[in-house]
Amino acid sequence: MVTRLDPRLAEPLESRLNTEGFERPLALQETIPEDLVPLLELAHRPVISARQFSREQLIQICRLASQYETQPGRNRRPLTGKILISAFYEPSTRTRLSFESAWHRLGGDIMSITDAATTGIAKGESLYDVAEMLNHYGDLVVLRDSNGQAVYEMLDALRIPIVNAGNGVDEHPTQALADMYAIFKWRPQLLDPEVCAKAPIRIGVIGVPGRMRTVRSLLLFLRLIAKGIKEVVLITDDEQPFSEGQREELEKAGLSLRAATDLDAELPNLDVVYINAIAWVGDSFESHGSRYRLSKASPFKPGAIVLHPLARGPELATDLDDTPHNWYFAQARGAVYIRMALLSCILKTYA
Amino acid sequence: MVTRLDPRLAEPLESRLNTEGFERPLALQETIPEDLVPLLELAHRPVISARQFSREQLIQICRLASQYETQPGRNRRPLTGKILISAFYEPSTRTRLSFESAWHRLGGDIMSITDAATTGIAKGESLYDVAEMLNHYGDLVVLRDSNGQAVYEMLDALRIPIVNAGNGVDEHPTQALADMYAIFKWRPQLLDPEVCAKAPIRIGVIGVPGRMRTVRSLLLFLRLIAKGIKEVVLITDDEQPFSEGQREELEKAGLSLRAATDLDAELPNLDVVYINAIAWVGDSFESHGSRYRLSKASPFKPGAIVLHPLARGPELATDLDDTPHNWYFAQARGAVYIRMALLSCILKTYA
Amino acid sequence: MVTRLDPRLAEPLESRLNTEGFERPLALQETIPEDLVPLLELAHRPVISARQFSREQLIQICRLASQYETQPGRNRRPLTGKILISAFYEPSTRTRLSFESAWHRLGGDIMSITDAATTGIAKGESLYDVAEMLNHYGDLVVLRDSNGQAVYEMLDALRIPIVNAGNGVDEHPTQALADMYAIFKWRPQLLDPEVCAKAPIRIGVIGVPGRMRTVRSLLLFLRLIAKGIKEVVLITDDEQPFSEGQREELEKAGLSLRAATDLDAELPNLDVVYINAIAWVGDSFESHGSRYRLSKASPFKPGAIVLHPLARGPELATDLDDTPHNWYFAQARGAVYIRMALLSCILKTYA
Repeated sequence: MVTRLDPRLAEPLESRLNTEGFERPLALQETIPEDLVPLLELAHRPVISARQFSREQLIQICRLASQYETQPGRNRRPLTGKILISAFYEPSTRTRLSFESAWHRLGGDIMSITDAATTGIAKGESLYDVAEMLNHYGDLVVLRDSNGQAVYEMLDALRIPIVNAGNGVDEHPTQALADMYAIFKWRPQLLDPEVCAKAPIRIGVIGVPGRMRTVRSLLLFLRLIAKGIKEVVLITDDEQPFSEGQREELEKAGLSLRAATDLDAELPNLDVVYINAIAWVGDSFESHGSRYRLSKASPFKPGAIVLHPLARGPELATDLDDTPHNWYFAQARGAVYIRMALLSCILKTYA
Repeated sequence: MVTRLDPRLAEPLESRLNTEGFERPLALQETIPEDLVPLLELAHRPVISARQFSREQLIQICRLASQYETQPGRNRRPLTGKILISAFYEPSTRTRLSFESAWHRLGGDIMSITDAATTGIAKGESLYDVAEMLNHYGDLVVLRDSNGQAVYEMLDALRIPIVNAGNGVDEHPTQALADMYAIFKWRPQLLDPEVCAKAPIRIGVIGVPGRMRTVRSLLLFLRLIAKGIKEVVLITDDEQPFSEGQREELEKAGLSLRAATDLDAELPNLDVVYINAIAWVGDSFESHGSRYRLSKASPFKPGAIVLHPLARGPELATDLDDTPHNWYFAQARGAVYIRMALLSCILKTYA
Repeated sequence: MVTRLDPRLAEPLESRLNTEGFERPLALQETIPEDLVPLLELAHRPVISARQFSREQLIQICRLASQYETQPGRNRRPLTGKILISAFYEPSTRTRLSFESAWHRLGGDIMSITDAATTGIAKGESLYDVAEMLNHYGDLVVLRDSNGQAVYEMLDALRIPIVNAGNGVDEHPTQALADMYAIFKWRPQLLDPEVCAKAPIRIGVIGVPGRMRTVRSLLLFLRLIAKGIKEVVLITDDEQPFSEGQREELEKAGLSLRAATDLDAELPNLDVVYINAIAWVGDSFESHGSRYRLSKASPFKPGAIVLHPLARGPELATDLDDTPHNWYFAQARGAVYIRMALLSCILKTYA
């Protein structure tokens, strides 16, 4: 039992006040000319799949996110009076808090449904009826559901926008937006076709595209910058890492994909290393690639960055946290801003 | 697994933007002269039973609700700074979201208690002590509790208003207010005594008044417009559909009641058909009248409307949704506005 | 089943409107000169232990609380735009609602984590990673956790302030602040050294300092006014009521402690009687001193006051509620204001 004042409580917190990171969001505003026209098409539209976004929309959302990140004083709380229905029927803290934080920062109000057992769903209501109800209670729905079809089933009755926060093993588009936002902050030159052609990057993905919704959405976004990517190396034990038709769809868009099993053999050539070890399936999860592990001792290419959607497990060693490879905290940092940008576009109201 | 862009995501949502319904709330303002005096008596009063309302209060609350529904720009968020304690100790989504949406639209803040197991109740606190605590944490309490006596027991210690969102099998006054609001929007002439006398309506209630709190409160409100009602037909299998003293109380106020068992025989004469099949009792529910079912093929009187508190089960077929009989979605639509009106009156602050 | 209008619903609530108490918070402003300098040191600092506070900080926080309590019109909602992360991993209603009410009154927004099972913690995230995440989602964290070390473990990664709302059996500093606020409102003269020296008070604590976090924090605060306390009498059955080093730490600061077992023998000499019978340990609780009970018939000294953190059990009889000894409701009343004061100081923004 503590019997004296912990020294950490005696020291001033001033040095801790700065929650900003080292990454330069301003670079996106310097590199990308502003163009709101692509964003207008997002107004009042549901966001369920990464397929919905054009390259221009992706780029402009990231640029808008960087404005939220660099100019907090410009935020006039444009969602004042708007209600978010935050429906997380699957365990989550990061994604839910990230969305709710973004909505609060924009000035909106929130109603949460976090436990399906205490809701009307327990009364056996059809998803159609649930959607019809939500039309009258809020202005936008964010939904995470282990039933991958739920968000699609609600589309027929919904007349307010819905944003997919993870539907079964299918997709998690806003997580992938946060990943792309981090990648663009790291390497804004990826947006310049000439520059890319000269120095395309190699991206390693340690995971199972067929089972992990974060990876599925990320690969779909990577199609949009395929010209800047020499190849995507999938590092996996799985003999059938792709779901049916997945590889074909990606390659058709110009992504060059290669599967490999030896992580340490691939690492010295990878510019971006994305790692995820968990696939959430219903109320439980599958563990994949447990022999793959990144740590300070891993043979990284100099300047390589590591991304992880978090929460992490043993696959991502904590001794990497204080190295320049650590861009997974930057990825999380940007997640609130990219969600602020997306929600602003959907409700067509920019701070 | 999805491998292409769902066509519904490609089409514009513009056509879906309009969440308004076909019903004309404006009719209430055209028909009812505004009179705020009856509403002043509601200030700072608890709302537990439909018995508390006079005919004039019912009418003016509905009129005020129609103003909220037709003139959203007039809403100055009058509950800014006020805190709602949203206490739902029984599963609910519709009612909770409806109340919370209403409170947010009025500009207020909300604290939720949704799981009795994680609250002080689990520590065995008396309801008196809980009420004494709530006095200092918020400005109004909304309570749903399977213990029908709880809301009454808290009255002695409470010094802030409490609104009953369903107390056991006893009452659900705000749901019944939403029902009356829908009925008035459908037939504003019910408020004109002369007109009523010439064309009184027949109302069918498929349910068990003794066990269903929504029906109990609705019948109490129907007393206030008894002159416009030729008869209320209770369609039920139950041999003892009423609780002790219930029938007498209603008939004493001038309501003409008749019990019947054959739904299809009664339907051709009913102007309003109210159906409910579930009675919530504690953490579970009873199913009543499972042989009664409304569908597009039912022998409705032309122009008849169907009401259902929702969530629905097999008793209300989905093929009714696209017919003019469907006023159950309108009923849900109005529920937020009627709650905004009621909460405004209780806190004596009108948008 | 109710068949008539409950008479309590018919009578006007006007007489109930007043949620204010009899205690005079204004006395603190009359007795204590305002001095904000001690409060500046609290800016952006975590609050985990009562040891962190100097006598001057304690006094000025109480004075600021009294300003919130007496001048509600001066509240300009200074936390508008600030987000509280309300993390209660242990059952609570009082403390959580008290904090959330305070934050709402100051104009801020709130995100709740109330069930560890549905959060990232369930995914086995380290507390370090949880803290790193919270840095980007909110402006302040309030944490209650049955793991007493959790709040300390998060300090290394946290860059936003954290307030301890109860960490295992260790401390509950804001509850003790509320206790001190009540004591100062009752006897402002305790703050005048000359007056104290002439008439020091006797404080009785019925509880187990080694196991009860509320008592642990309270005793630490009492050190700061030791000159006005003749003795603290611990009334307990426990043979070892103190944890290791606890008694020494308190006596070293000048508190005179004495253990006793006979409550009724001590009562006639006690000016303040603090009682608590429950020690929360993990998801369960220990019951202590069940033979000790306070009621109207207890041999109180005239003018003595009773404090209890609530929720109460049989140890505090309800027949005491209507006696002048009842300062436990006043203690709860002040809890929101003292938390408003503390949170204002931490975010360095006073209403």
